Amino acid sequence: MNKLLIVGTVAFDAIETPFGKTDKILGGAATYIGISASFFDVQSAIVSVVGDDFPQEYLDLLTDRKIDISGIEVVKGGKTFFWSGLYHNDLNSRDTLVTELNVLADFQPKVPQDYKNAEIVMLGNLHPLVQSSVLDQMETKPKLVVLDTMNFWMDCALPELLDIIKRVDVITINDEEARQLSGEYSLVKAAAKIHQMGPKYVVIKKGEHGALLFHGEEVFFAPALPLEEVFDPTGAGDTFAGGFSGFIAQSENVSFDNMKKAIIYGSNLASFSVEKFGTERMIDLDKHEVVSRLKQFKSLTQFDIEL
Amino acid sequence: MNKLLIVGTVAFDAIETPFGKTDKILGGAATYIGISASFFDVQSAIVSVVGDDFPQEYLDLLTDRKIDISGIEVVKGGKTFFWSGLYHNDLNSRDTLVTELNVLADFQPKVPQDYKNAEIVMLGNLHPLVQSSVLDQMETKPKLVVLDTMNFWMDCALPELLDIIKRVDVITINDEEARQLSGEYSLVKAAAKIHQMGPKYVVIKKGEHGALLFHGEEVFFAPALPLEEVFDPTGAGDTFAGGFSGFIAQSENVSFDNMKKAIIYGSNLASFSVEKFGTERMIDLDKHEVVSRLKQFKSLTQFDIEL
Repeated sequence: MNKLLIVGTVAFDAIETPFGKTDKILGGAATYIGISASFFDVQSAIVSVVGDDFPQEYLDLLTDRKIDISGIEVVKGGKTFFWSGLYHNDLNSRDTLVTELNVLADFQPKVPQDYKNAEIVMLGNLHPLVQSSVLDQMETKPKLVVLDTMNFWMDCALPELLDIIKRVDVITINDEEARQLSGEYSLVKAAAKIHQMGPKYVVIKKGEHGALLFHGEEVFFAPALPLEEVFDPTGAGDTFAGGFSGFIAQSENVSFDNMKKAIIYGSNLASFSVEKFGTERMIDLDKHEVVSRLKQFKSLTQFDIEL
Repeated sequence: MNKLLIVGTVAFDAIETPFGKTDKILGGAATYIGISASFFDVQSAIVSVVGDDFPQEYLDLLTDRKIDISGIEVVKGGKTFFWSGLYHNDLNSRDTLVTELNVLADFQPKVPQDYKNAEIVMLGNLHPLVQSSVLDQMETKPKLVVLDTMNFWMDCALPELLDIIKRVDVITINDEEARQLSGEYSLVKAAAKIHQMGPKYVVIKKGEHGALLFHGEEVFFAPALPLEEVFDPTGAGDTFAGGFSGFIAQSENVSFDNMKKAIIYGSNLASFSVEKFGTERMIDLDKHEVVSRLKQFKSLTQFDIEL
């Protein structure tokens, strides 16, 4: 198996949806990515930062899943990054109520020595300079670098974002972000422009409408599983990214054909994540359920037309 | 092959999109359905009505495609149904500018004697009483009755619509209409409620986001092909319905597995329809292009995960 290095936030979230609300619960991009990737046979580590208000039980939850947390700095007297959001009735849009950067404001990522030769690097959503700093610390060139980002960085750190985009193999962003980044409404044209910015592979996430994987002229589509109820979309994109990068690391194969499977695995895991608040569903999830739902993905999409 | 009976409008459309506008051109649900179904080896007839202002060349265009038009009544001194619409910038929504029912106002459909034993009946979007009247005229029970409808009839003829929905095997509607008809936001729940209204098969069209086919607990998804440019969405849903019903009629097979293929064929044909104004692209289209794009659909969706 390949080593998977994950960078991203480890945080407190407080979430309100039409179905209820939570107090401060475990959240953060790296948390979701790490938990999702742990469904594969991988050796992974998270690079992040928390304050000393961060409960040991949350850290234990990560180590129980065999995630190396030596790269999670605990700042004495510091407070953990906190995000709070309110989802609208259709769950497709949300308002950010609170963003307290806290220890994240001065975060200097430190890649553990053991992971400076990681083959797969998953740069979760964070300031592009932090993402760049992680790549700068790698001692061997990774086989695959995957970047996730969001519109916030396009608005307030575009030059730094464009710098890191140049350096990655795969970018995962949502449809509106792809349009903003490229200035193109058509996702086909948007992907073509983003290819020119550097990444050979462009993944455009469309939420309940699935995800598209572009590679030059080639394109592959993974639907989202139609669900009776979406309870809380928080972390779905990160869970997708964790499934994607975790599967690639396990299979040690960065071909386009293998990436097709990887986005199916990513979609599959994300379909569980939205069923409960926060990370709750992913923590309960067992591998039999994952396989059983993969069968649903197959019957949802596979057809037999001879040409 | 099976006989395919099509009922729906044959009309003049005037369309304006961000890319341009047309004068009065050939349009109508039955026109799009008939042309789309003609890509299969079927024996088909259209039941509709036009005025004597309807050009002979448009009728010839249908007969050239081996469509029986003896069920298209030409009303002397009457004017053909006319619709005009303006699409918004994202092409996902439109305003109706003009609806002149004209000869459609008093339309009494007459099924040609030869088609009173048609195995497949495609009820295109029209007043539910007209759709019912066509079913009443059948002398043998069809193997499959497919209904297409729209929100307009939910608003102004709901009891009559519910009556015809009870009598059909397949209903095709878009996502917003499924939500309106069922009162459920989740499409999975919406489909379950619509099943209870009668149809064993529920097809929910999501435009650029593809289409879902529900059959009890089973569900299948056909994506829309990601296109560089959508030029004019008019008739895409009807072209989809024509591909669906045309393929079923050709294959003489109304199983769920065969319907999966049918919605892929429907999506495939619809992906051409939107590339030019009105029926223009479908008239030019040759079968080699259809097969070539089917290969794109396969590579877009097919993956190889062993379970």
